[in-house]
Amino acid sequence: MIKTFEFYFDFSSPYSFLAHKQIRKIELENNIKVNYKPVLLGGLHKLAGITANAFIPAKAKFMIRDCKMCAEKLNIEFKFNSFFPTSSLDLMRGVLIAEKNNKKKEYIDIFFDAYWKNDFNLNDKSLILKLLKKIALTKMEFEDEIKNELKNKTQEAFNKGIFGTPSFIVNNKMFFGQDRIEFVLKEAEK
Amino acid sequence: MIKTFEFYFDFSSPYSFLAHKQIRKIELENNIKVNYKPVLLGGLHKLAGITANAFIPAKAKFMIRDCKMCAEKLNIEFKFNSFFPTSSLDLMRGVLIAEKNNKKKEYIDIFFDAYWKNDFNLNDKSLILKLLKKIALTKMEFEDEIKNELKNKTQEAFNKGIFGTPSFIVNNKMFFGQDRIEFVLKEAEK
Repeated sequence: MIKTFEFYFDFSSPYSFLAHKQIRKIELENNIKVNYKPVLLGGLHKLAGITANAFIPAKAKFMIRDCKMCAEKLNIEFKFNSFFPTSSLDLMRGVLIAEKNNKKKEYIDIFFDAYWKNDFNLNDKSLILKLLKKIALTKMEFEDEIKNELKNKTQEAFNKGIFGTPSFIVNNKMFFGQDRIEFVLKEAEK
Repeated sequence: MIKTFEFYFDFSSPYSFLAHKQIRKIELENNIKVNYKPVLLGGLHKLAGITANAFIPAKAKFMIRDCKMCAEKLNIEFKFNSFFPTSSLDLMRGVLIAEKNNKKKEYIDIFFDAYWKNDFNLNDKSLILKLLKKIALTKMEFEDEIKNELKNKTQEAFNKGIFGTPSFIVNNKMFFGQDRIEFVLKEAEK
């Protein structure tokens, strides 16, 4: 039987990137199907009453070093984005469009790398359009339907106990943190 | 040469307990001297602008399960304290008294276990006095000097970039989290 778990992510979260890269390896090596679930990290924080690391100077300072140390340990090519924090709102909405066009996987790989490997400036709309072209997508404008869909998905995630990214759900149990994937896999084996 | 690092802790933090137990093993197995530094977690959070996990329901719920999973992985006997959160203010002040009486190590071992292994109610002053008796300490009242000393130590820790517990400093570098001790040891080897 193919095992499966859900992975809740936001491109703007460097720890989500570290989880994503580990998941791509796990998918290759194991009989596991991972369901990528886009959410808005800012929305989750608001719902939970959390101030993001990025806005707590002492935490932000450690986070940058910590991400580098974790990436090195995991042998993941990583560069803390020079333009951090940039809004990921439109890029997260784009996941839903990509999904409807059967390009979800390619889209996610491209924009995670753009943020945390290639050090691209994702405030630059022309750059985003150039990246979209690679997978034959052409625009970054959204109907209200898509806007609401992402909002609803974020609310649903919060209702399941999720307060940040990266998070995982398997067997109705929630796990938080790129450094907790071993627990997720253990739970998936049950 | 004996290597050394600083360990910043508060008894009320379950992750500090998990760090403490790992450190006791490390001290036995390695040529490492760990300098235990008492601080007030509540004070650090206030200085940094952080809301404690305990007061964010979604986070608190995960934290309880996460501590159990980490303890199991590390083979540490652990029970999430039924009376959590209880104030650790007087017990943290007590570390300074114990230190002046050359009982710091024994005191720390007793009260970490009381919180996170024995599930004791540390609101109960008579219980605290009973525990103190074991190491020939007799009272839990503090002069202003001790109160200020703990406050100052907390402020000093914050000035070094510390925003929570458990934290570690080695070679002037700060590390946060019981799951980052491997990075601390790696840095200590440098």
